[in-house]
Amino acid sequence: MRDPSNPVCRTISTLLSRIGDKWTVLVVTTLGEGPRRFNELRREIPSVSQRMLTLTLRNLERDGLVSRTVTPSIPPRVDYALTELGHSLQKPITELAQWALDNVGEIHAAQARFDDEQDKAAAA
Amino acid sequence: MRDPSNPVCRTISTLLSRIGDKWTVLVVTTLGEGPRRFNELRREIPSVSQRMLTLTLRNLERDGLVSRTVTPSIPPRVDYALTELGHSLQKPITELAQWALDNVGEIHAAQARFDDEQDKAAAA
Repeated sequence: MRDPSNPVCRTISTLLSRIGDKWTVLVVTTLGEGPRRFNELRREIPSVSQRMLTLTLRNLERDGLVSRTVTPSIPPRVDYALTELGHSLQKPITELAQWALDNVGEIHAAQARFDDEQDKAAAA
Repeated sequence: MRDPSNPVCRTISTLLSRIGDKWTVLVVTTLGEGPRRFNELRREIPSVSQRMLTLTLRNLERDGLVSRTVTPSIPPRVDYALTELGHSLQKPITELAQWALDNVGEIHAAQARFDDEQDKAAAA
């Protein structure tokens, strides 16, 4: 874990960066409620661009966290769902998001104090 | 949480991205064992550059997660430690890192399958 040149550690680092990505968190928590079509995800996650949603889903599919099911209707229907592995990520990701929600006020206050001290130091 | 244009959501997104950063994970887990001086952190986290470690510690200090104590000796001594808020982040961050460690094999296998299918589709 400590040595980022180790391949396992590199994968974990890449994973953590990906998981920490806001779109990943939003897609995983939304799909946690049930399967969604692409346009349903776009509607439920305001401000995600088509490109970012495509990229996020593709990375999640590549990691085996999300499944993509194509129904050959006209037009074709594509459903995205969490895999079993994806479901297992829900608990740790929700706990981290909950920690962030619970502490956002305290963090904001710390940032304001820090910036204020920097400003004072710069003016002195 | 769902609307990234909301300021609370923006802070949470920024936080999650920062927390997901590999250096943050490594610094928080190392400081979880006890306070460290800058050069101790550099030794314990191989391949972190001086610049990245400085930046990571500064962001963590700004967020109120890490404290920086300067002892005016010659040369001055600087100790970094988790604050109470920083300690509260240890549990969710360790669970997420543990999930990644537990599932790295399955994710590697999924990535190999995905890349293989892409190669076959490109060759067809």
